[in-house]
Amino acid sequence: MATVSDITVSAAINSLSALLFLVAFAILRLQPMNDRVYFPKWYLKGIRENPTTSGPYVKKFVNLDFRMYLRFLNWVLAALRMPEPELIDHAGLDSAVYIRIYLLGLKIFVPIALLAFGVLLPVNYTGGNFNTMSLSMKDLTFGEIDKFSISNVPPASKRLIVHIVMAYAFTFWTYYILYKEYKIVTDMRLHFLAAQIRRPDQFTVLVRNVPSDPDESVSEHVDHFFRVNHPDQYFLHKVVYNANRLAKMVDQKKDLQNRLIYYTNKHERKPNKRPTTKTGFWGLWGEKIDAIDYYTEEIEKLSKEEVAERERVIGDPKAVIPAAFVSFKSRWGAAICAQTQQTKNPTRWLTEWAPEPRDVYWNNLAIPFVELNLRKLVMAGALFGLTFCFMVPIAIVQTLANIESIGKVFPFLKPIINKGSVKSFIQGFLPGMVLKIFLLILPMILMEMSKIEGFVAVSALEARSAGKYHLFLLVNVFLGSIITGTALQQLKEFLKQSPSEIPETIGVSIPMKATFFITYVMVDGWAGVAAEILRVAPLIIYHLKNIFLVKTEKDRDDAMDPGSLLWPITEPRLQLYFLLGLVYSTVTPLLLPFIIVFFAFAYLVFRHQVINVYHQKYESAASFWPDVHRRILIGLTISQFTLLGLLSTKEAANSTPSLLVLPILTFWFHRFCKNRFESAFRKFPLQDAMIKDTLERATEPQLDLKAYLKDAYLHPVFKGGEIAEEDYDDDNDDRYLVATKRTLRKGSQSGTQEGSPEDIYVDADADADAHIV
Amino acid sequence: MATVSDITVSAAINSLSALLFLVAFAILRLQPMNDRVYFPKWYLKGIRENPTTSGPYVKKFVNLDFRMYLRFLNWVLAALRMPEPELIDHAGLDSAVYIRIYLLGLKIFVPIALLAFGVLLPVNYTGGNFNTMSLSMKDLTFGEIDKFSISNVPPASKRLIVHIVMAYAFTFWTYYILYKEYKIVTDMRLHFLAAQIRRPDQFTVLVRNVPSDPDESVSEHVDHFFRVNHPDQYFLHKVVYNANRLAKMVDQKKDLQNRLIYYTNKHERKPNKRPTTKTGFWGLWGEKIDAIDYYTEEIEKLSKEEVAERERVIGDPKAVIPAAFVSFKSRWGAAICAQTQQTKNPTRWLTEWAPEPRDVYWNNLAIPFVELNLRKLVMAGALFGLTFCFMVPIAIVQTLANIESIGKVFPFLKPIINKGSVKSFIQGFLPGMVLKIFLLILPMILMEMSKIEGFVAVSALEARSAGKYHLFLLVNVFLGSIITGTALQQLKEFLKQSPSEIPETIGVSIPMKATFFITYVMVDGWAGVAAEILRVAPLIIYHLKNIFLVKTEKDRDDAMDPGSLLWPITEPRLQLYFLLGLVYSTVTPLLLPFIIVFFAFAYLVFRHQVINVYHQKYESAASFWPDVHRRILIGLTISQFTLLGLLSTKEAANSTPSLLVLPILTFWFHRFCKNRFESAFRKFPLQDAMIKDTLERATEPQLDLKAYLKDAYLHPVFKGGEIAEEDYDDDNDDRYLVATKRTLRKGSQSGTQEGSPEDIYVDADADADAHIV
Repeated sequence: MATVSDITVSAAINSLSALLFLVAFAILRLQPMNDRVYFPKWYLKGIRENPTTSGPYVKKFVNLDFRMYLRFLNWVLAALRMPEPELIDHAGLDSAVYIRIYLLGLKIFVPIALLAFGVLLPVNYTGGNFNTMSLSMKDLTFGEIDKFSISNVPPASKRLIVHIVMAYAFTFWTYYILYKEYKIVTDMRLHFLAAQIRRPDQFTVLVRNVPSDPDESVSEHVDHFFRVNHPDQYFLHKVVYNANRLAKMVDQKKDLQNRLIYYTNKHERKPNKRPTTKTGFWGLWGEKIDAIDYYTEEIEKLSKEEVAERERVIGDPKAVIPAAFVSFKSRWGAAICAQTQQTKNPTRWLTEWAPEPRDVYWNNLAIPFVELNLRKLVMAGALFGLTFCFMVPIAIVQTLANIESIGKVFPFLKPIINKGSVKSFIQGFLPGMVLKIFLLILPMILMEMSKIEGFVAVSALEARSAGKYHLFLLVNVFLGSIITGTALQQLKEFLKQSPSEIPETIGVSIPMKATFFITYVMVDGWAGVAAEILRVAPLIIYHLKNIFLVKTEKDRDDAMDPGSLLWPITEPRLQLYFLLGLVYSTVTPLLLPFIIVFFAFAYLVFRHQVINVYHQKYESAASFWPDVHRRILIGLTISQFTLLGLLSTKEAANSTPSLLVLPILTFWFHRFCKNRFESAFRKFPLQDAMIKDTLERATEPQLDLKAYLKDAYLHPVFKGGEIAEEDYDDDNDDRYLVATKRTLRKGSQSGTQEGSPEDIYVDADADADAHIV
Repeated sequence: MATVSDITVSAAINSLSALLFLVAFAILRLQPMNDRVYFPKWYLKGIRENPTTSGPYVKKFVNLDFRMYLRFLNWVLAALRMPEPELIDHAGLDSAVYIRIYLLGLKIFVPIALLAFGVLLPVNYTGGNFNTMSLSMKDLTFGEIDKFSISNVPPASKRLIVHIVMAYAFTFWTYYILYKEYKIVTDMRLHFLAAQIRRPDQFTVLVRNVPSDPDESVSEHVDHFFRVNHPDQYFLHKVVYNANRLAKMVDQKKDLQNRLIYYTNKHERKPNKRPTTKTGFWGLWGEKIDAIDYYTEEIEKLSKEEVAERERVIGDPKAVIPAAFVSFKSRWGAAICAQTQQTKNPTRWLTEWAPEPRDVYWNNLAIPFVELNLRKLVMAGALFGLTFCFMVPIAIVQTLANIESIGKVFPFLKPIINKGSVKSFIQGFLPGMVLKIFLLILPMILMEMSKIEGFVAVSALEARSAGKYHLFLLVNVFLGSIITGTALQQLKEFLKQSPSEIPETIGVSIPMKATFFITYVMVDGWAGVAAEILRVAPLIIYHLKNIFLVKTEKDRDDAMDPGSLLWPITEPRLQLYFLLGLVYSTVTPLLLPFIIVFFAFAYLVFRHQVINVYHQKYESAASFWPDVHRRILIGLTISQFTLLGLLSTKEAANSTPSLLVLPILTFWFHRFCKNRFESAFRKFPLQDAMIKDTLERATEPQLDLKAYLKDAYLHPVFKGGEIAEEDYDDDNDDRYLVATKRTLRKGSQSGTQEGSPEDIYVDADADADAHIV
């Protein structure tokens, strides 16, 4: 379809736009006023201070040292300089392993590309199919690019054997690299876990669906159950309160306080004029009133309600959820409890590893267990609908968002929109806009769906959303681009076809779509990654906040939005490149260099971002790797089936058995890797628990574990000491531990804010000074 | 195809033959000489003695009390009389639950049949499709039976709604019964396990793939590992020897001894003539020698070899397999070890519940762990080949087994087989015979395949074989009967069709095959079950053994072959009836009464057999139920898809969505039941373990657990005391238990043979008199 020169032009344009982003980034990042946008991680770590305020006032905002501009690509070297162990220390294992995915892409595709260019390109180019084809057809469906693709090999040619051999070679190379990488990541994870400092989740198990007992409270029931069934290991427990309403109030209060600050600042700047607001929605309409008085009053009102709610939650036994965080005296005890079944009814006393305290998604703990099955069923249906019928709601919204509807809702706009040029603009622009907006909010929709499914850890929610997004992209971007029409139509079409025809249908269109995907890689991949490093949105928001809200240094800290890796969005998108690379490696190898450039460039950018920007919300110790591995294998399987379909249209039907072996092998490889590695990501072996326990007992014999674990799993809204009695009544027999004196080394390297959940990590570093009776 | 009178005749013939079997059984079972064939279970239990020898000699063999013949159907009442709890006590839970499957069939199909006869038959009969059809077509493909089937409803008729409603009703009724039954069986299992006497497997875990250690023997390594990682719970362990060669020798010796006895008996009867034998294969050819001398000599030779091998196994560290049976001080400790992962490498130190000692399949313990994956892969391929291409080897054998080949191998037969009548007989008969023989040995082939896969428990092997057999029957009997041609051709056909056409293809042929399946139910079901109660093969073998081998009472005991339920064969066959009943419930309800008669009759027969005949080799506490449940649901799903396909050919395409809901619901129901019940069959909850432990500690404080567990997991060839030192060197520190005095109550109710694996159950009853230090 496209000539080589078309591609070259497109490549030039995209490279240029990527370069422009990079130059903009190089300039912006040197300005001191943007320092907190481009290097927030260092601020959070407490290493970087505000740029020196000495010198002329303007220097505070603009960098006038022109020599620095000359070295504008310095960040690349800086990003590469940090060695991996230091990176793990600095940014956590999740981030370090995440950027290894890009490296993995390079490891897989660079040798494949070399082999493909050395072997397949000459074979394809001299295939000479086009010379024998009629000119008209050539013009219609094939471009110059296709001279290098499998399309140039005539049907039933002996040359196709080369492609089959190459498919085997690429498959085995991918297995080899994937296996090696899985092994490395597993080792990294185990090493990381072994070296990890004490964390409350190592000792804690989340118990769900505690059966109700007419004679005992949930707390008593949990205590008695574990005292009986884990007599030597049970330590203490923490019941979970349904504090969702309270948490909402706290959020609301925070929002009101922000507004108050905004108006107070405004007033300070212009002391002679009291700022006003309107009582209606978003201050857009309604009665005009004095803003400072209004918000002060509102905050006071809410504070009172909050106190009442807080008391209700603590006092009301109905606010206690039949779930609890149960802590054990050793990691060994917790590992045992997490991995075993407690009672004969498998839907009761369910135990699982507790997530990290900052990883707990508290809202979902309150979901009754019986609902979970139903919720999952409904969400599975919704996902199916969303994936295969996603055009339907879009079409409805687009119909609603046309000229007439707008005119009806906003009559005052009628005269404007009825003007010819505006009308046509809206009519041409709005439908596309709606689709774009939908695609932007799609990850949020998927996240909400995962939340409805009831997972209790943020990491689980993200993993689940990533899976959903991956399916969506696979169906709607990959299949949707190959076969035109909406996914629902495709599904209908597919069900009508025989199973062996599906790969054929896809296989035939694959070579024709090569140029489309090359463009896609450049636009979405190259330019997208370059946009990532520029951080346009955080840049704007930071400066807006800086102008309107920031008064103190702490405010400025709060205004920073380092963001995080956005795992559930970036990883599934990234998988698309693996899929494209694998699919086209045997079909149109010309696509491979574009993929390689993407992986290399993204590797640099994300390494820089991980070092300087992102602040991960939790640390899962690379527990996402089995998903990454599985999805690459899904891509590999798809590539094998498409080649199978393609070759069967090339009248090489006798190649089918030899190619059918590949997906079976891939499935077996998947099973093999799963057996070999996955449990390292899912379970905590007893031997390792025992080693850590023994080591700790030897090095810290006087550790006050009770004080350490006591408030680790407190709902964040209670952090600050309002609660934390009543649960421990029956632990006060002091059988195990008596805390005598504790010194906390505050302001340690993992600098944290007052009262945040990270407080407990300070404890972890503390030289606790207690003795065991 | 068939008229109602055809069916009636067929039913009469089959009922008659079944009745003949029953009469034969009624007469034969009353003869004292057959007592051990028809009531072996009572002999094994030690309750029944030989028939009184007083009175005339003939009475010992033939029953002359003619009054007893009048009550020849007495066994039916006797079979029904024993209440279920007593049955569980008498025959074990496995058997009691097994016969519940037949009852389950009645519970599902009797109400369905009533509803179908009340609603569907009138609707079908008045459908009047055949009145509108041309006469020629009517004759060609439809019979009178079809007047009552869905075929009589014209296409696009509103009456089809009744069938859809009925499909829903039947589905929900099946769910309801299945759910109730799963719950009952789960409760029975849990109750059984809770009431169970102490068994070594409750305390024991099988550890596989112990890594090799250059400094320690396997025994030491296991000991150290569990001493460190389960410090409070580890008790003792038993390494496993690769005694496969020794076991073979023991078997061989037993065989030789049998022959010796045979010839000694022969000699005693005719003292003037020394019996002779030939040295060749099966004594068929070779040198003629004195049989008694020959076998005495051979036994002596083998005994010497056996002693040498026995010493080699015990002495050679290489004969120790990297696996061990590890026993714990409490059931709680064992439950923990069985359910947790021990080390970070998930392929090492693998723990699983130890099977019962008599359930262990010792041969497979020696398989290196690395091989297992490969073996499973190969066997999966073999199963696929066997299922879909099973006609290929048959055809080859049939080709080889023709006249010419026989003539070549056995030239001396040439003159005989070349005679016209013999030739045609062989040519017409042999190919069918080969197929029949193959089907007879198929379960054995499947069992061998399961053995190759490397399962270490007989129960696991049987469960696995049953799964394979079920697949085979589903493809080759059900699908194979519906669509003619070999399964391989079908597969090809299927792959060519679109997925939505497959149910159509099947759906269309379903009503036409009703008469075939009615005949099948009568021949295979009715007559087959009646043959089961007659026990022709054991009857003949027993009498042959009685004549040639039996000298003492013990020999006569050994000659009894009570057999067992043959779970891996009967259960998959039985599933076929569930499948047929569910498929035809909405299509041709006339089939249902035949199914119901089968279930009722089989229930009676198997209840009788379980009470009087079968002797189960192991007790799995109904652990097979999840398989039964799942397979019935598979049948239900197939029935739903066939109805879907059938209706779509009836031009009722708009019914598709409403019917497509059913398989989804079924899948969800499966998941629901799995979550709800399955873990009761797979795991041992800690609470129950703790209760049993506590109870035991209270009631038997002086139990000598060490003596109890010490030799429980000894390879059967070592039973007798040759081994059992060396493993316990490091347990002799007497930290836990000192055995002082033990009295064994021998000859308890569970009467066992000397040195059999059941010995340990005697221990369980023993009032062990030891004290804990």
